[in-house]
Amino acid sequence: MTKIASKSFWHKYQERWQQTGSVLCVGLDPEFSKLPDCVKKAENPIWEFNKAIIDSTAEFACAFKPNLAFYLADGLRGLEALYRTVETIPEEIPVILDCKVGDIGSTMSAYVSAFFNSMQIDAITLNPLMGTDVVKPVLDNGGFAFALCLTSNPSAADFLKQSLAPQIADWILQFPTENLGAVIGATQSSELKTMRSLLPGRIFLIPGIGAQGGDLEAVLRDATDSAEQPNILVNSSRGIIFASNGTDFATAAAREAKLIGNYK
Amino acid sequence: MTKIASKSFWHKYQERWQQTGSVLCVGLDPEFSKLPDCVKKAENPIWEFNKAIIDSTAEFACAFKPNLAFYLADGLRGLEALYRTVETIPEEIPVILDCKVGDIGSTMSAYVSAFFNSMQIDAITLNPLMGTDVVKPVLDNGGFAFALCLTSNPSAADFLKQSLAPQIADWILQFPTENLGAVIGATQSSELKTMRSLLPGRIFLIPGIGAQGGDLEAVLRDATDSAEQPNILVNSSRGIIFASNGTDFATAAAREAKLIGNYK
Repeated sequence: MTKIASKSFWHKYQERWQQTGSVLCVGLDPEFSKLPDCVKKAENPIWEFNKAIIDSTAEFACAFKPNLAFYLADGLRGLEALYRTVETIPEEIPVILDCKVGDIGSTMSAYVSAFFNSMQIDAITLNPLMGTDVVKPVLDNGGFAFALCLTSNPSAADFLKQSLAPQIADWILQFPTENLGAVIGATQSSELKTMRSLLPGRIFLIPGIGAQGGDLEAVLRDATDSAEQPNILVNSSRGIIFASNGTDFATAAAREAKLIGNYK
Repeated sequence: MTKIASKSFWHKYQERWQQTGSVLCVGLDPEFSKLPDCVKKAENPIWEFNKAIIDSTAEFACAFKPNLAFYLADGLRGLEALYRTVETIPEEIPVILDCKVGDIGSTMSAYVSAFFNSMQIDAITLNPLMGTDVVKPVLDNGGFAFALCLTSNPSAADFLKQSLAPQIADWILQFPTENLGAVIGATQSSELKTMRSLLPGRIFLIPGIGAQGGDLEAVLRDATDSAEQPNILVNSSRGIIFASNGTDFATAAAREAKLIGNYK
């Protein structure tokens, strides 16, 4: 726990993008059953896997995003793997914990303390259902969060794709650009364009992009804020980390990460 | 991890209520800074604290509800305390993990596996923002969840107290009564009555009740389903577990738990 997060997520993101030209977020979703056999026998398999993935993909990554669920699913060993993972990621690459927490008061403060202070991550994803009370502890701590705003899963139609997504976008605008971004998953070009027009200047975390250039090209065209400041992170998880489940898994991950990270 | 959850949450809840006449849910929110000095020096303070609280309050409890945030805030030791806590709670008392998770696909499956299978809890709280995809892994596992539906925090006005709470209630009705209940926090009598009329037969988890009989009387009157099957759990956390921060903390907790658990 010696890592010191000296810069805000916002600044780390902007600097990292400028240095690398990459808007790739590498999702570290180490689903245990999918780990290559060659790491499964390690003392801490998830940690062994992540270490190799981070080493091989870091140069192409604008950010890393571990997803809490896959670490908790491996119990105490999994949580330890998460701590070690965050410590290992080079200081200049921002780390987003995908946890989608959305609680209030002392409970939300406990999450903020656990993640930003003890674990030293740079940003979290957040579920805004309970309103402004969810964001307060993040702001009080000077942290950064991506609020779920529009998702692309089939049942996003239940609530978000009714009138809720624009309402959440409007709500996000109350908070500083340096503290609150948005998770925007979109399968249609028009949705991305609409969300960008509603949220200029906000960093978008965009999940669900494969290694295919087609998706990526559309996302870059429709969601980018400006050439000087794109304000997007395009996430790929399984397409990178599980590109191969043989002993060459890290090399295969690097190849996929490079395709997205170097895409212009 | 030898505990075997042989019965569903639904059945455990109904049986426990019939045996005790209590609808009290004891919230295990062990915020570290509030723990009594006498347990802070223990090898695992949260675990030491919870053990004493469980021993002293179990007879008055219809359910226990640990809140994930306070355990993660104490790192690996905290997660270990959570595992031990769930193991220690008597088999006949259902355990709800308050985690408000709301993810989809393999991520939600990982949470379900972590909580229901590894940790052996009986139910979770769940955030329905992303729709039906969030519930599917719970149903596939035969689990029980309380979906956030109406909360009583000030900023519930941002989204839930617009048109969303009745929409979520309507959505809940698609799923079996034995698998999906609702978190209903309400400060106004009319809200509780409305939510009950929208969700007959559903178990309500009702947070935010103090040890004061006033609140409790109104909740029992307005939210109870029927005398034969009340289908409510009235949660109290801090009012019970932090009733005293001296060496008598467990005795003080039992006194407060009895006030609610024996309330008729």
